[in-house]
Amino acid sequence: MMAASKVQSILITGANRGLGLEMVRQLAESPGPARLVFATCRDPDAPKSKDLQELAKKHPKVVTVLQLDATDPCSVKEASNQVGLRLQGGGLNLLVNNAGVLAHGTLQSTSNQDMQDAFNSNVLGPMCVTKEFLPYLRAAARASGQPGMSCRKAAVINISTLLASMASVSQAYAFFPAFSYRVSKAGLNMLNQCGVEEFRKDEILFAVLHPGWVRTQLGGEEADIDAAESVRGMLRVMESLSEKQNGAFLDYQGKSLPW
Amino acid sequence: MMAASKVQSILITGANRGLGLEMVRQLAESPGPARLVFATCRDPDAPKSKDLQELAKKHPKVVTVLQLDATDPCSVKEASNQVGLRLQGGGLNLLVNNAGVLAHGTLQSTSNQDMQDAFNSNVLGPMCVTKEFLPYLRAAARASGQPGMSCRKAAVINISTLLASMASVSQAYAFFPAFSYRVSKAGLNMLNQCGVEEFRKDEILFAVLHPGWVRTQLGGEEADIDAAESVRGMLRVMESLSEKQNGAFLDYQGKSLPW
Ligand SMILES: NC(=O)c1ccc[n+]([C@@H]2O[C@H](COP(=O)([O-])OP(=O)(O)OC[C@H]3O[C@@H](n4cnc5c(N)ncnc54)[C@H](OP(=O)(O)O)[C@@H]3O)[C@@H](O)[C@H]2O)c1
Ligand SMILES: NC(=O)c1ccc[n+]([C@@H]2O[C@H](COP(=O)([O-])OP(=O)(O)OC[C@H]3O[C@@H](n4cnc5c(N)ncnc54)[C@H](OP(=O)(O)O)[C@@H]3O)[C@@H](O)[C@H]2O)c1
Repeated sequence: MMAASKVQSILITGANRGLGLEMVRQLAESPGPARLVFATCRDPDAPKSKDLQELAKKHPKVVTVLQLDATDPCSVKEASNQVGLRLQGGGLNLLVNNAGVLAHGTLQSTSNQDMQDAFNSNVLGPMCVTKEFLPYLRAAARASGQPGMSCRKAAVINISTLLASMASVSQAYAFFPAFSYRVSKAGLNMLNQCGVEEFRKDEILFAVLHPGWVRTQLGGEEADIDAAESVRGMLRVMESLSEKQNGAFLDYQGKSLPW
Repeated sequence: MMAASKVQSILITGANRGLGLEMVRQLAESPGPARLVFATCRDPDAPKSKDLQELAKKHPKVVTVLQLDATDPCSVKEASNQVGLRLQGGGLNLLVNNAGVLAHGTLQSTSNQDMQDAFNSNVLGPMCVTKEFLPYLRAAARASGQPGMSCRKAAVINISTLLASMASVSQAYAFFPAFSYRVSKAGLNMLNQCGVEEFRKDEILFAVLHPGWVRTQLGGEEADIDAAESVRGMLRVMESLSEKQNGAFLDYQGKSLPW
């Protein structure tokens, strides 16, 4: 139990590919405190999760793969039960709501179904996951013995996007409308800000990160940076967060973004 | 046809009570240019629409009551057909997306169903209405012969709320969380900003208004101001909008609000 409380426990959604997978890799391979990484994904046994499974095999003490579909409350509940068993009362220090979907299209060309899919994945998913893992985040905050807030103690990081910035729509709308994505991620940003207020007394930090424009399936091949660079930056930013950044909207380089 | 193009045509959703009804009243009773007001509501023949029906009876040349449930695409389409018949090619100058719903509750206490209801009414509704009336707004912009943008020419006004301001969540979350409402109205604000970019070339103005905290069924009896004061302010603000305020987020007194 004493040792367990020194281990940093982290849960990441959408960990089978893209930024989520790279985050698990860097956490497993970089030096630092002992870590317990719950790498969750929709289909752990599918071919698309092979890279994650291999990574887990290389780091069996660090990485635990669990099934979690953020849009399926039963699946989230079952994952939370599994995490509870493994934490043995130790609490969850960091939840990274990384899973997300992107559809293209303008206000005019976007269907209600596209809007619904984006809302389910990018708003209801993170909401359900946050609610379900809250008891473990609270336990971690209580167990920490440290004052203030940090990702080592208890935090929820929501992976959003610059495209969710109301003040920045004019920059890229013409060539990258992604209407349903922007609306849903703006909702996620608001979820984050509500979390800030609701869980301040529990000393759980909430922040929104923009990973940059990254070469993943979602970001496409023309993107600016690779996943390794984005995740290195995001992990550095997360490491630096304190109660002063509670409610911040930061990019992977730590730059503050306007709502 | 010449005369018709001088008439300002306006459509308001949720016009049977609260701010929508008061807006119809002030538009019908105040001096100014000749107006054609499409006062739309879910149940024109229900007791809750009696006040609107009486108002329409008093101003038969100005006020036309039409059935429109913003969350029902068939109903929106049918209303749009009716408006088209009455406009006789004249175009719609102003669309006010006023209909909205509010549910209370925190992130923790809000159900997926509450989230869905708020999303349907406060995001998908205005989206559907905006799409459906777009051809008439475009027609009005083309027919105006005036440069620039204004609510006399072609505009969509989205009635949002200060509660949708990410920067303002800390002010009132503790005693007024309204989680689903904040998330959905933040989505509406993003819809507005996308509209700004998408319809700039059509010279259709988009702006977000916060009516203040108003004594209506939604605002409650403890609110700051009455509907008459709020609507007087909002109409004055709408009247003042030009292309400079395209994409503005303003309260009923014309004060700019942070996203
Ligand atoms: N790449 C960029 O340029 C960029 C820029 C800004 C923000 N972001 C954000 O960064 C996050 C990660 O994006 P990425 O670039 O890594 O995208 P990606 O390569 O497309 O990966 C998305 C991940 O999310 C998972 N996922 C989707 N819906 C899910 C659900 N309901 N439950 C569980 N997992 C789900 C996917 O799982 P499956 O394999 O099962 O589909 C996949 O693992 C997203 O939130 C995205 O919006 C990315
Ligand atoms: N009052 C405030 O303090 C305040 C503050 C900030 C923002 N606002 C915003 O101002 C707007 C008007 O609010 P209010 O105070 O006048 O509220 P209200 O008195 O509760 O009236 C709401 C109106 O919206 C209609 N409505 C709801 N869903 C609809 C749908 N799917 N289709 C068509 N109509 C629908 C209602 O119709 P039914 O009668 O059929 O239900 C009613 O006419 C809302 O968007 C609200 O969010 C109000």
